[in-house]
This record gives sequence, structure tokens and C-alpha cells, in this order.
Amino acid sequence: MFEQRLRLVRKSLSEDKIDALLVSSAVNIAYLTGYSNFSTREREAYLFVTESSVSLFTDGRYIEGVRSILPKGLKVFLYTELFKKIRSSKAKRVGVEQNFTLSELKKFKRKTGLNFTLTEPLVEKLRAVKDDKEIKNIRLACKLTDKTYSDVLENIRMNITEKELAWRIERLIKENGGELAFEPIVAFGSSSAIPHHQTSNKKLINSDQFVLLDFGVKVNGYCSDMTRTLLTKNATNKARKIYETVRVAQQKAIEYISTSGVGPDSPEVDASKTAKVANDYLASKGFEKIPHGLGHGIGLEVHEELRLSPKSKNKLVKNNVFTIEPGIYIPGFGGVRIEDDFLLSDNLEQLTKSPK
Amino acid sequence: MFEQRLRLVRKSLSEDKIDALLVSSAVNIAYLTGYSNFSTREREAYLFVTESSVSLFTDGRYIEGVRSILPKGLKVFLYTELFKKIRSSKAKRVGVEQNFTLSELKKFKRKTGLNFTLTEPLVEKLRAVKDDKEIKNIRLACKLTDKTYSDVLENIRMNITEKELAWRIERLIKENGGELAFEPIVAFGSSSAIPHHQTSNKKLINSDQFVLLDFGVKVNGYCSDMTRTLLTKNATNKARKIYETVRVAQQKAIEYISTSGVGPDSPEVDASKTAKVANDYLASKGFEKIPHGLGHGIGLEVHEELRLSPKSKNKLVKNNVFTIEPGIYIPGFGGVRIEDDFLLSDNLEQLTKSPK
Repeated sequence: MFEQRLRLVRKSLSEDKIDALLVSSAVNIAYLTGYSNFSTREREAYLFVTESSVSLFTDGRYIEGVRSILPKGLKVFLYTELFKKIRSSKAKRVGVEQNFTLSELKKFKRKTGLNFTLTEPLVEKLRAVKDDKEIKNIRLACKLTDKTYSDVLENIRMNITEKELAWRIERLIKENGGELAFEPIVAFGSSSAIPHHQTSNKKLINSDQFVLLDFGVKVNGYCSDMTRTLLTKNATNKARKIYETVRVAQQKAIEYISTSGVGPDSPEVDASKTAKVANDYLASKGFEKIPHGLGHGIGLEVHEELRLSPKSKNKLVKNNVFTIEPGIYIPGFGGVRIEDDFLLSDNLEQLTKSPK
Repeated sequence: MFEQRLRLVRKSLSEDKIDALLVSSAVNIAYLTGYSNFSTREREAYLFVTESSVSLFTDGRYIEGVRSILPKGLKVFLYTELFKKIRSSKAKRVGVEQNFTLSELKKFKRKTGLNFTLTEPLVEKLRAVKDDKEIKNIRLACKLTDKTYSDVLENIRMNITEKELAWRIERLIKENGGELAFEPIVAFGSSSAIPHHQTSNKKLINSDQFVLLDFGVKVNGYCSDMTRTLLTKNATNKARKIYETVRVAQQKAIEYISTSGVGPDSPEVDASKTAKVANDYLASKGFEKIPHGLGHGIGLEVHEELRLSPKSKNKLVKNNVFTIEPGIYIPGFGGVRIEDDFLLSDNLEQLTKSPK
């Protein structure tokens, strides 16, 4: 598996006439080595891939841990070896990744005398096409998401706070063996009008019309991401119309992909056109277009390569996994978002199956 | 508070002859605005600070949420306004931060025609000196850490797994109103020899000599970070000697700081010399030097500006908050780390007070 991934990396490098790739993304390192314990917030390792070698560089806190799970052929060194090894690799053009900083560039140039070239998101592109094992893990994450949702519905009662409900979600996930893909978003009433609302101590009260739950599960490193918006029994006709419009907008996007791009000989599906279909439907009902993307790739990260948005240049291809999540947000009133995860194979398969 | 912080930022900028600072670190944005909901993993906002204005740029998911908690004088715009506003600011030299990527640099140059200058960690330096409110929050985090530790001791029993114990720690923290500062590290037996061990399904068994617990709490955005290593009743004399050596090494570092740098008229304390004192003590007992830093700053982030390590150039000054965490790790045998949080004021105050 790791050998196959490295082979594809090397193929891309040689197409781009790059001699070596310095992988600085901790998630990309996990994808290429299987070691997923490096922080995504601080730089704790580099992976240096040349035509003939793969070397991991890290510090004394990690080196024993990494050595114990090495894939075949991968060598591990302390940071102190890094610049020497890069120089001695004879690489002339070294590619660096999207998260490589200006500060690192200065240091690497000074220490090696080499030039570094920003590559297109190369490993990220490989990651967008999932293999069977990855799909299996995402299915597990989606299944646990559905189970969690079903359990959490029983926990919603008057006077519960957003934070309390978020903590119930978290407990249900972890006690079932999953991890959080991200901090759950719970929004009551008018707070649901804020797409990334900061879960607060606000209590659910009688006059609230909406309960928005956006959460994701991580299983074996792979994420799900699902949003449901519940209408309370006090929901007005206006609230119901918003809900129904969002639900149909998601359905329109699903139908567009299903009719234009599935099956073995079908053309690739245009991600931007998919977003347009959903936005056009919202416009036809008198609502503004979605203030965020219609969807995004999902896998080792909860947001990854693939954007379903009006400006996206992505094509959807077989074994992409992504969300479709239209939303309507009316400041001061409330909002509705419905989000599910999908696998594009010979058909468009919906992976999260909780009722809407 | 925010005005005072901005004043200090502007003072640093003018000393460096920089016209404006583009803040890309989500934590620095939280420090300068009070809005802490942006991801630290993805770029979700920029703060643009000039001599006369402060503007926050973000996307449609956040804009309503940010507007609702704005400090006085701060303006919020959608990303679509970003390049136009930078150009119209008339700034000639724009400073960028440590996490600004090569990819961003190319885009910003192309879109604005300006040059961008990598600054020294400017906001990070300000953050290293805590104000009263920050110290109060760190005290709360440390207090909850001590309470959690005391409760978790009652949960350690034979056959519990590392993951189960980590989950107990997490539940205790969250049910007491805190958040995790980072995923707890739990290591049994020889796993304690790996400073950043990946908490596993390993069970505590009779022959294990060590139980290492490294966890931190976040309260109102501020972190604690504490490590305790327990010797089980099967611990050999060798294990006990290691423990005692680490405990005294921490004490030596504390004494060095206490005798060389506290009190209103004292000189600043050299961080690298402090690390040397601890390492020299380990060497005198026949052990290797610590394979990680002796300590690090702590605050909004669990690792921040200030490194207590042999190569550090930092000076410890009043109202710095940092860890002191010596460790000895014997591959295949086990390891001991003891870590506490300290505030340097007129004396060196230990903030985490759990028994050792």
C-alpha cells in the first residue's frame, strides 16, 4: 500500500521534473508512512522522498515510536541529519508542499544552498482517490455517525445547553470507540444562522425553531462529517420552507452528479457545475447562494482536496469521497444546513444515512 | 486590553520599519481580537494591522459570528475584499508571520504587487509576557489539572488500557468544565521510554514498572501541561534511581532560576543555562541529556514562545509562564518525565501542585 503510494508520488515528481519532495504536511506523512502521531499544529517531522530513498526526520520525542512501526525501506533520522542528507541526496530541484512556510524556506536555503520549488498539492491529489481500505474506514466512521445521531436525538430536551449537547455527542462517539473529527457544532435558534457558530452555554428554549448539529467521527484515522437541522415543534411556515428548500437543493446536486457522471464509461463530473445546480435552485426559491462551499473532500482530514464550489476547478472522479451540504442562513432568524457524505463509484452512494 | 496589545504590535512594527502586519496565526488573531473560533489547522482568517486600522478578513461561515463579538474599532470583511484593502492601505512593507506559507506568498504578491517581509515572531513575543487576566486563567487550568490528577489516581487499576485511562482523564476534565489542551499521553511500562508515545490499547500488567501520564487542561482558552510518572509496586531499584534523578534535576533547574533571576531588580535568567543545569545533573548521575527541551512557554497554546533548551536564546523575564520537564528514557526499559508549570514573578511560583 505505502509502496504503491510512493510510486505514484515519484511518478508525479518525474512528470514535474522535480528530483525530490520534502513532505511537511503531517497528514501527508501519515498517508505515506502510516505513522499518524505527528501534530498538525506544529512541525514535528519531515519526509524526504527521492527516486531511490525515503527518509523521515523527527526529534528525540518521536524517534523511538516511529522506529517501532516503520514500513519496509523507510529510514528514520534525527533532525540534526536533515540538511546533510538533503545535500548528499544530489537532488537539484526539491519540491515543497503547500504548508511549507516562508520561514522554513529561508532556513532550508541557507542550510543547503539549494532551491526549493513549490509543488501543486501532489500528495493531496492522490489522497482524493480512496482505496478499498480507506473506503472501508470511512464507511465505519459514517456508520458510527448515524448511530451517534440516533442516540443523541434522545438527549435533546428543553433547557439543555449547546455545550451540554455537544458533550453528549462527544461521549457517545468516544464510548463507541471513535474519535472526534472536529469539535461538534451545536446551534440553537437564531445561532443556527451562523454557519460556524461557536457552541455556547445558550439553553434550548421554547421559542427556538432550529436545532443544528454538525459533527464528525474519526475511525482508524478516517473522518465523517454530517449536519442535521431539526425543526422544533414551534417552527413557523417560513422555517419549514427554508428546510424544505435546503433538502431539495441537496437532492438536486445528488441528481446532477448521478445523471451526469456515474457508471464506468461516464465523463468526469464538474464540481463547479454541481455547486451551481444547488445555488440556482436556492435562487429560484428566492434565497441567497450558499455562503460556503457546497461540499468538500473528506478522508484523513475533515476538509481535504476537492471543493464543490462555484469557482472550483475540480472534477469528481471514481472513488472520490465528499460532502454535499447546502445551507440557508437568515441572520437573526436562523439557518438550516443538511450535510451528508458520498462516495462516487459506479453510482453515487450516500454514506451517512440518518433521517432528515 | 486589546488596544494595549495592538499598541505594542504597532510599536514593534515601527521599530522594524514595517508599515503593516498581516497576522495569519489563528492564535495570534485570538490574542489580538478575542475571537478564538478560527481553526489552527486551516487558514480561516487574516488580521491586517496598520498604524491607523485593524481589519479582519474571513469567509461567509464566520462573518456573522465574528461581527457579534467585535472589539471596538475592528472592522470585518469578506476575503473578497482582502487584496483590495491591502493595496489601498498604502503600506509599502507588509510584515508576515512565521506560519505564512510560500504558497500564500506567491498569491499575495501576484494579487497586490507588494513585497512581504517575514517578521520575527512578534505577537508570539508579546504573548510570552502574561497579563493578570491571562495568569488567572492559567491558574484555573492548573488547578483543574491537579484536581483531575487526584481523581484519575483512583481510576488506575490492573488491566486498564492506556486508551481507557486517557478517556477517564478526558472525561474528568470536560465534566469539570475544562477542555483538553492536547490529547492525553498515557504510557505503561516500556512505552514510557517513548517521550511522545501514541496512547494504545496496551493493558497495565503486573510487570510494568512505570505509568506515565502527560495531560493538559484548557480553561477560557489558556492551557496547562503536566506530567507525572508513577512507579508501580514492582519498580526495581534502577527504576527508582531514574525517578529520583529526574525529580532532583527538576529541583536543580527550579533552584537555578530562583537564585539567579527573581525579585524586582534581578537580571534576566538565561533559558539555555537553566537547561544546562538540568542536563549536567543527569550527566553527573550517568544518564544522557534530555532528548527534548527542558521546558517551553505555555499560554493560549500548549507550546509557545520560550524554549528552555541548550540552544535557546531566550531570557526568562517577569510574567513568563513555562514548563520545567526533565526526563530520562531507556529504550525497552521505560522512562520518567516530571513536568510542572511555573510563573516567574517576584519569585518562581509553581502552578501545578500535584504530589510527585
